[in-house]
Amino acid sequence: MNGQPDANNVLRSTQIVIEQALRKLGYGDEMIALLQEPIRMLTVRIPVRMDDGTTKVFTGYRAQHNDAVGPTKGGVRFHPDVNEDEVKALSIWMSLKCGIADLPYGGGKGGVICDPRKMSFRELERLSRGYVRAISQIVGPTKDIPAPDVMTNSQIMAWMLDEYSRIREFDSPGFITGKPIVLGGSHGRETATARGVAVMIEEALRTKGIPLQEARVVIQGFGNAGSYLAKFMNDAGAKVIGISDVNGALYNKEGLDIDYLLDRRDSFGSVTNLFENTITNEELLELECDVLVPAAIETRLRASTPRS
Amino acid sequence: MNGQPDANNVLRSTQIVIEQALRKLGYGDEMIALLQEPIRMLTVRIPVRMDDGTTKVFTGYRAQHNDAVGPTKGGVRFHPDVNEDEVKALSIWMSLKCGIADLPYGGGKGGVICDPRKMSFRELERLSRGYVRAISQIVGPTKDIPAPDVMTNSQIMAWMLDEYSRIREFDSPGFITGKPIVLGGSHGRETATARGVAVMIEEALRTKGIPLQEARVVIQGFGNAGSYLAKFMNDAGAKVIGISDVNGALYNKEGLDIDYLLDRRDSFGSVTNLFENTITNEELLELECDVLVPAAIETRLRASTPRS
Amino acid sequence: MNGQPDANNVLRSTQIVIEQALRKLGYGDEMIALLQEPIRMLTVRIPVRMDDGTTKVFTGYRAQHNDAVGPTKGGVRFHPDVNEDEVKALSIWMSLKCGIADLPYGGGKGGVICDPRKMSFRELERLSRGYVRAISQIVGPTKDIPAPDVMTNSQIMAWMLDEYSRIREFDSPGFITGKPIVLGGSHGRETATARGVAVMIEEALRTKGIPLQEARVVIQGFGNAGSYLAKFMNDAGAKVIGISDVNGALYNKEGLDIDYLLDRRDSFGSVTNLFENTITNEELLELECDVLVPAAIETRLRASTPRS
Amino acid sequence: MNGQPDANNVLRSTQIVIEQALRKLGYGDEMIALLQEPIRMLTVRIPVRMDDGTTKVFTGYRAQHNDAVGPTKGGVRFHPDVNEDEVKALSIWMSLKCGIADLPYGGGKGGVICDPRKMSFRELERLSRGYVRAISQIVGPTKDIPAPDVMTNSQIMAWMLDEYSRIREFDSPGFITGKPIVLGGSHGRETATARGVAVMIEEALRTKGIPLQEARVVIQGFGNAGSYLAKFMNDAGAKVIGISDVNGALYNKEGLDIDYLLDRRDSFGSVTNLFENTITNEELLELECDVLVPAAIETRLRASTPRS
Amino acid sequence: MNGQPDANNVLRSTQIVIEQALRKLGYGDEMIALLQEPIRMLTVRIPVRMDDGTTKVFTGYRAQHNDAVGPTKGGVRFHPDVNEDEVKALSIWMSLKCGIADLPYGGGKGGVICDPRKMSFRELERLSRGYVRAISQIVGPTKDIPAPDVMTNSQIMAWMLDEYSRIREFDSPGFITGKPIVLGGSHGRETATARGVAVMIEEALRTKGIPLQEARVVIQGFGNAGSYLAKFMNDAGAKVIGISDVNGALYNKEGLDIDYLLDRRDSFGSVTNLFENTITNEELLELECDVLVPAAIETRLRASTPRS
Amino acid sequence: MNGQPDANNVLRSTQIVIEQALRKLGYGDEMIALLQEPIRMLTVRIPVRMDDGTTKVFTGYRAQHNDAVGPTKGGVRFHPDVNEDEVKALSIWMSLKCGIADLPYGGGKGGVICDPRKMSFRELERLSRGYVRAISQIVGPTKDIPAPDVMTNSQIMAWMLDEYSRIREFDSPGFITGKPIVLGGSHGRETATARGVAVMIEEALRTKGIPLQEARVVIQGFGNAGSYLAKFMNDAGAKVIGISDVNGALYNKEGLDIDYLLDRRDSFGSVTNLFENTITNEELLELECDVLVPAAIETRLRASTPRS
Repeated sequence: MNGQPDANNVLRSTQIVIEQALRKLGYGDEMIALLQEPIRMLTVRIPVRMDDGTTKVFTGYRAQHNDAVGPTKGGVRFHPDVNEDEVKALSIWMSLKCGIADLPYGGGKGGVICDPRKMSFRELERLSRGYVRAISQIVGPTKDIPAPDVMTNSQIMAWMLDEYSRIREFDSPGFITGKPIVLGGSHGRETATARGVAVMIEEALRTKGIPLQEARVVIQGFGNAGSYLAKFMNDAGAKVIGISDVNGALYNKEGLDIDYLLDRRDSFGSVTNLFENTITNEELLELECDVLVPAAIETRLRASTPRS
Repeated sequence: MNGQPDANNVLRSTQIVIEQALRKLGYGDEMIALLQEPIRMLTVRIPVRMDDGTTKVFTGYRAQHNDAVGPTKGGVRFHPDVNEDEVKALSIWMSLKCGIADLPYGGGKGGVICDPRKMSFRELERLSRGYVRAISQIVGPTKDIPAPDVMTNSQIMAWMLDEYSRIREFDSPGFITGKPIVLGGSHGRETATARGVAVMIEEALRTKGIPLQEARVVIQGFGNAGSYLAKFMNDAGAKVIGISDVNGALYNKEGLDIDYLLDRRDSFGSVTNLFENTITNEELLELECDVLVPAAIETRLRASTPRS
Repeated sequence: MNGQPDANNVLRSTQIVIEQALRKLGYGDEMIALLQEPIRMLTVRIPVRMDDGTTKVFTGYRAQHNDAVGPTKGGVRFHPDVNEDEVKALSIWMSLKCGIADLPYGGGKGGVICDPRKMSFRELERLSRGYVRAISQIVGPTKDIPAPDVMTNSQIMAWMLDEYSRIREFDSPGFITGKPIVLGGSHGRETATARGVAVMIEEALRTKGIPLQEARVVIQGFGNAGSYLAKFMNDAGAKVIGISDVNGALYNKEGLDIDYLLDRRDSFGSVTNLFENTITNEELLELECDVLVPAAIETRLRASTPRS
Repeated sequence: MNGQPDANNVLRSTQIVIEQALRKLGYGDEMIALLQEPIRMLTVRIPVRMDDGTTKVFTGYRAQHNDAVGPTKGGVRFHPDVNEDEVKALSIWMSLKCGIADLPYGGGKGGVICDPRKMSFRELERLSRGYVRAISQIVGPTKDIPAPDVMTNSQIMAWMLDEYSRIREFDSPGFITGKPIVLGGSHGRETATARGVAVMIEEALRTKGIPLQEARVVIQGFGNAGSYLAKFMNDAGAKVIGISDVNGALYNKEGLDIDYLLDRRDSFGSVTNLFENTITNEELLELECDVLVPAAIETRLRASTPRS
Repeated sequence: MNGQPDANNVLRSTQIVIEQALRKLGYGDEMIALLQEPIRMLTVRIPVRMDDGTTKVFTGYRAQHNDAVGPTKGGVRFHPDVNEDEVKALSIWMSLKCGIADLPYGGGKGGVICDPRKMSFRELERLSRGYVRAISQIVGPTKDIPAPDVMTNSQIMAWMLDEYSRIREFDSPGFITGKPIVLGGSHGRETATARGVAVMIEEALRTKGIPLQEARVVIQGFGNAGSYLAKFMNDAGAKVIGISDVNGALYNKEGLDIDYLLDRRDSFGSVTNLFENTITNEELLELECDVLVPAAIETRLRASTPRS
Repeated sequence: MNGQPDANNVLRSTQIVIEQALRKLGYGDEMIALLQEPIRMLTVRIPVRMDDGTTKVFTGYRAQHNDAVGPTKGGVRFHPDVNEDEVKALSIWMSLKCGIADLPYGGGKGGVICDPRKMSFRELERLSRGYVRAISQIVGPTKDIPAPDVMTNSQIMAWMLDEYSRIREFDSPGFITGKPIVLGGSHGRETATARGVAVMIEEALRTKGIPLQEARVVIQGFGNAGSYLAKFMNDAGAKVIGISDVNGALYNKEGLDIDYLLDRRDSFGSVTNLFENTITNEELLELECDVLVPAAIETRLRASTPRS
């Protein structure tokens, strides 16, 4: 069974949330019909010349959920599991996030079906630029603003920004967020997700009466969010006893050597493949702990890791 | 069973045609991957205020198959059976049509899921304008040029053109074809499809050695194409013995009174409902005749009419 | 006698002010010639479909007095008495207001001849959108920025902003001020006029040595300015003994129950029609009081109310 | 009595024509309300630096009557008698002219209150460029297309075209008609008005059975239309016995020496001031003749020439 | 001695031609000052990623001589000898060519210092696209229109057109001439230069009384112009006894086998390197003949070929 | 010997600095090739109508060194010695300045070969506007931002800003810096250069242990930088014993009367011509002093003043 049904569930489950919320707020069918799908969903085909001289055609998406209060905003994901329903669902969640924080933005989301781990630096550049060319007409600082997401980083944002600015024939740093500091990126942006989770964990522990120094933390996922969170927790004195990545999980009752793991982690967030003594993701999720943080991508959170 | 599977077949069967043709021409997988899907497919949600004060949200599509040799071009269909795969498939066929006629255009196609027969004049106007607003960023005289299609006519083109020109703040007649003559429409456009079929029938009969005056003609569908064709055949001296519409079919061995039928036909092409003595579509298709013209919409061509 | 002569007086009297001021500042005829008329005055005709199916054609104006130091800026008035000279004169006053406050804006003003009290919600929406379409080419965040004025409010600004953003194909909140907070409006904007007057009254009373608590206040007009001012004066302890609206005036020697009046006031600022025991506007203006505030529209300030 | 009442009459009389025509065609009040005024009328103030170093502020107009079937189109007049109502009325007449000739244009018209006879070459250039800058936002090849009119010629069109192209940053010859041939002007444009009148006179004489060679022709006005017409009539063998200009009229029973007069005519069409033996315009209009051509500007046609 | 002084001579000698011509036409110093240099000359630096992974920075130029009568127009040359003065001079010659043919264009010219013979297909594509990006702001169908020139062909035009259309986000075939027929190129364009020379040679021979069949033709240069001319002359029956390319020259008293040479010619126009028995360019120029055609690039015409 | 070789030296010496710096930072030839020349250099010809009716054609430049981190930015110089290499070199220095201050701008620079001291106010206005028209396509708030430089001031910036805003049809104050305060200029901008030098001198004296009150200051150049610096030093208690301008130098062992000199200084910074008792620039540079400030333009710093 492939991931499609799961993805459908992501959209359907999101629509159910929307419907329930709107019903509670007293809105009728009209509003539900309007908000349960993006107002605009663009699917594009991106031909990319590969290093071996062949051309490969990638499929990309950009969803704009609702722009009633301002431009739409949301990340672009590069991943083999990207699909239309997931992109749609995530754009809806972005509307909710912006609304909760009272930001003058609607929700947007993008994605390209590809496996960045199997692409060269230049292939990634050409794909990033091609994606921007394909969607350029419907995005912009006052229309729809991309950002990094799963497996896209500040380098990719820099390529996308450069392509957009070249098309527009002027410097347009407001087109994208998550770009490098030197190109106008925001300080603290890279660690913001992890920082937010860390603050909430600290507040939760305080409420529960668990001293931070005694807390055992397990983190599923060692990407941008998970790895910085591990560092923040570790630096704050907590004991990070388990982490996982796409290949497996690591466990140490006394606390893992987070700085060492961060140092050895590759650019896609993989580190467990360097170790022989790994546990499975299922085992990780069953570890006894005080704090368990799900920091992997949506579909991964429910998937099981095959025992190798 | 709903229409979705059929529609899928339309796209899949089109892709198979593309693949076979490209293979024969010696192209490889890259070209097939590029040409079997539109490079750009936009799905939009269009809120329309109905005459009763409620708001209804319609789903619209615009597919742009390939723009390598020029802007894309193709009609916009308003029909309850419109769906994503059908729109995609038809955009591919438009590329083929343009290519065969050596026109500097690629294929495009659009559609809105709605039933114009159940909408008022003003509701249709608001839907037409809303559709243009939703897709305006990716269309235009040098990008992608809409046109009439099933259940859209020159009045709808006029609304779409007006909306587009207002957004652009200048007169832009090149945005759309099939508009009224007074707004820059082309003479002969309305009868062009039927005229082309008539020319081909006359050539075919000549080849077969059948005198036009003796030919018995059966036409499935009495919309823009079918009704004008009936008139052309009738005027040329042929005997139109059978025609059909969405409600049933009429048959007269001695030839139908085409001018009378054209006179009684409503604006959506229905006329058989005025008669008690109808036959089914299946029976129509089995009539003995010299010329049988399929002039109904794609999915209808395979559907059976329930006997009333 | 119709209102035209009065309106002429408004423009003529404004021009005399400009001329006198420039003469005192040592400027010659050239500068007077330049500043006594708007550099740009646009008159438009706006066809609006009414709820009964008919079309009514409204006349609208937009005056831009002078854009030497920045974009022009000023409100849009919906009122039956709107006329060309009034709009011109008010645009000149906006230049003076901006100049006095040292803001980088020139003066602008707009208006539509209509009676919002006799139009439905949807008719007002269509008129508001039609007005923006008609003037869109000469307005914008860096050209000329509309705002609410007599009988236009944040709902009308929201429609105008939406229409403008749709035409531009991007979110453009800077196009208009006085919009709802959720669309980017400014906090405190709605009460700003009244707040400013209240501050000045307090300062004037202090100078005159009259305790605020003993001050008797009469306010002519109970619209956005007058009603909030009544509330501010009342809340501060002053005695608001008289107020008026388009239908008549109310008087209570011991102070009116302002909160009650605010509660009963309709959306166009009328409240006196709910009372039998009214006085005329002339009588209001002759009441013995410490503070008399003219807060009605220009032509109203000089007009007499017919005794019913 | 100044010219304003006359001008009012021009607009009022035009509106009566419109109303009568629409009533005959069966249209109701809505259509009359829409068509009796331009949809857009822009009044601008144009500061021009004069050769003596002072600045003079001119008033200019641009009326766009109706753009339903295409861009508006019409001349720009430089004349001391230009006024708002005249410009409006002439824009309505341009709609009629375009409609009668079935051209895809609506009517437009412009004018500047000035006396080109009292301005230097460079002052005229600066005024022409200033006028284009003032109205640039609402004109253009697909919006509203100016042309020469009373006292504006191909040189002025060249300045206006250059200014427009510089603002747009590209060559835009479609912005204006009546420009010099070398800049894309049309061959035959300069003599087109006279040519059309000449054709009609020839047809009329044929109908009346009057041989062209025996026809006595009187022409009121010796501007672009009148002078070329005189030449065409003269060349065709007719006897032009009387002509007039702003200063008076000339009469010769045997036919005037048209080539000589054309040679001596100044750039504003005046020639009679070179002769002592003139007659008045009234006398001209009472000359016995076969063809009498009114070829002066509208208000002049009814005005009397003071006897000197 | 390097090519710079020669190039200077090209500009200086062109300026002398301009000055002499203008003096003869009665123009003064102002006009000479204006016309002896391009009004706009843009020098750009184009970083190109080479196939070996390194980046090379190329220098490109675009000169616009004068745009008074329309957009500028002229080819883009890829050659190691391209330099600023040559580009300037050639843009002036383009103005003269357009003027002589009474075309509504001014002269333009571009060039990139590079050696296409040493670059791969993909490197040439990247350079072509990079050049368009670098100059995109000042070119376009109504600004300045590039074309093929020395060592640039329809493939390079196709890349440039694609890049320009992508930046503009719409199909813009009018941006460039010399593109492939399928993208909107003109039939006959490729052979136009040779065709024009052939026509002139035939006329000259007729005038001189030399039968074409007896004419001995020598052609210096075997590029686009020279090779097609050789074919046209040969096909018409003339005897092409000598041709040359960058490497040397071929001579056959009885006429060369032109079809064979055309067949063996490489894509940069070289063929003599396939033969051992060559003569020098000086010898070629001294051959006894009836027609001598200089069809090499400007600086080559004066250069001598070193004897190998 | 003319200024060209010197100017070459300015560019060459700048390129050497760039190369040395990049080598120290470990960059290779590619980066040096990219950074030692501006990516874009535009040369324009500007026809200006002079007060005497003739037309003079000026040559202007705009260099954009590198826009990788944001728009380019830099002054526009009006001076007879302006030349291509100087403008290029100064644009490179602007990149360095922006980089050192960590500003999100690249370096730009412009210049026009002219002598503002010999031009009237109106001629300067026409030149300033003509320069903006000529370069408008490649500049703008998000592309390349001009500023005042040698012999250009806030009045010239105001003209340039007005021209740019008129072309763009909206107020665009971000286009240029150094404009008058009333048009959006920055407070303190005019004295910023001198203020910065003053701060550095004070710090240097403190380090050296020289009391400011005892410091003898010599300033070469009395333009915007030099004159304000003289005032700041003088006001702070230092003794300004020598200053120079284009005509010569003044010396007073006891300190010059700076306020008097500032009062007599003309608008181009000349004052020494009012005195008989001057010294040469060489003598100035050899004066015994504690602080010697070179505040003249680049080429002047090395040039000798002829003894009169």
